[in-house]
Amino acid sequence: MRVLGVDPGLTRCGLGVVEGSSGTALDLVAVTVVRTPALADVGSRLHDIEQALNSWLDEFRPDAVAVERVFSQQNVRTVMGTAQASGVAIVCAARRGLPVALYTPSEVKAAVTGSGKADKQQIGSMVTRLLRLAERPSPPDAADALALGICHVWRGSAAARISAASAASAASAPGGRR
Amino acid sequence: MRVLGVDPGLTRCGLGVVEGSSGTALDLVAVTVVRTPALADVGSRLHDIEQALNSWLDEFRPDAVAVERVFSQQNVRTVMGTAQASGVAIVCAARRGLPVALYTPSEVKAAVTGSGKADKQQIGSMVTRLLRLAERPSPPDAADALALGICHVWRGSAAARISAASAASAASAPGGRR
Repeated sequence: MRVLGVDPGLTRCGLGVVEGSSGTALDLVAVTVVRTPALADVGSRLHDIEQALNSWLDEFRPDAVAVERVFSQQNVRTVMGTAQASGVAIVCAARRGLPVALYTPSEVKAAVTGSGKADKQQIGSMVTRLLRLAERPSPPDAADALALGICHVWRGSAAARISAASAASAASAPGGRR
Repeated sequence: MRVLGVDPGLTRCGLGVVEGSSGTALDLVAVTVVRTPALADVGSRLHDIEQALNSWLDEFRPDAVAVERVFSQQNVRTVMGTAQASGVAIVCAARRGLPVALYTPSEVKAAVTGSGKADKQQIGSMVTRLLRLAERPSPPDAADALALGICHVWRGSAAARISAASAASAASAPGGRR
């Protein structure tokens, strides 16, 4: 399963593609941070982000997209731009019929570090270890995007195994085939 | 000048097209409210909104798009969906090279009623009067979208007149042509 993780933001939007399945090693496919000029108007900034997302979806063909869920309790000054960027990321995936999963920062932290209260440094360390990288992805937006991808590979694989198991048990119910 | 006003929202997204210029009567070109099912996932809801916007931009070919500026102080439960929908509206316009203007609710109220604190009813009444409609647009999201369009026609026409006047005075500066 190949997942594009998106840590949305107008100034820095992290994109990370990981591949693997639950129980196997995970691989880094690609990671970047899309930056848009703070002085540009919001339309051209969102358009830059959309173009980067489209080109990554074309190039890396993920099976699913995982986007950080934005809350209004976050930094008030930037939260609206973050939410707008997340809307653009979600629609780019939905337009292609790709499944979109939204994860809260705590869910992502818990998935990759075991603690929903982990700090940026812990996330960076775990992403580095899980993807067997030579050095920690930088800036943190890059690590966060990869952590979103890892979170979804694990969650998505588990969900897929459960539904496969249910389907198999339904099929085999009264002496059916496996 | 023809303007598409967008009152963004996931559940109801108001779209209103108005035409006119400052000092002339304004005309209603079209108005609708795009609704998306509350139980659908956010990706398919944003995609529905994107498709509606694209088809309106194709059909009505506005010169500019005016979108309500979303604040995190608004209804916390729905504000993130509203911001995501606004991001989609902005990027649909930016992708076509159309100018996008963002107006706060107070700016829109002040433009159409003279008071930044007007209520929904006053906005509805003024939109009805300014566009010479037989009845008040309903639901309020429709009236709000039209009010955004009116606000931009007036502001945009004023800005265009000022820049035209500056250009003319620069051109005619030392005995130049008008």
